[in-house]
Amino acid sequence: MKARVHVMLKNGVLDPQGEAVRHALGAMGFDGVEGVRQGKVIDLTLAEGTTEAQVVEMCDKLLANTVIESYEIELG
Amino acid sequence: MKARVHVMLKNGVLDPQGEAVRHALGAMGFDGVEGVRQGKVIDLTLAEGTTEAQVVEMCDKLLANTVIESYEIELG
Repeated sequence: MKARVHVMLKNGVLDPQGEAVRHALGAMGFDGVEGVRQGKVIDLTLAEGTTEAQVVEMCDKLLANTVIESYEIELG
Repeated sequence: MKARVHVMLKNGVLDPQGEAVRHALGAMGFDGVEGVRQGKVIDLTLAEGTTEAQVVEMCDKLLANTVIESYEIELG
């Protein structure tokens, strides 16, 4: 089975990577870019029978820094 | 309007970040992790009227290195 995890900085946490991308797009002539947030996506290939609770545990213990990051899990 | 872009290393391109995560999860006792690929997710807030073609241009010119990375765009 597959799981996709998105890890994003929480709202209110400064995102210098996203700001750099926004600035670069503006400098390249893309005028309509109002905001950019950059995060990580982690695609996991898991043994059959792995539960969502185990993926949540992976996120809490390793994949996300829950002080400043939030995560979303999609099982597929 | 919002757009979400996923940028992943192409299949066949070594992903040392993903390998490091896979190894760390195994060392932490998560046995069912068969593979991990890590990429970037970029959330764009765009002016109304921005076209998908413009987002494709942003990806080709800045957001992805199309030699080794592929990207997917979701408009929402």
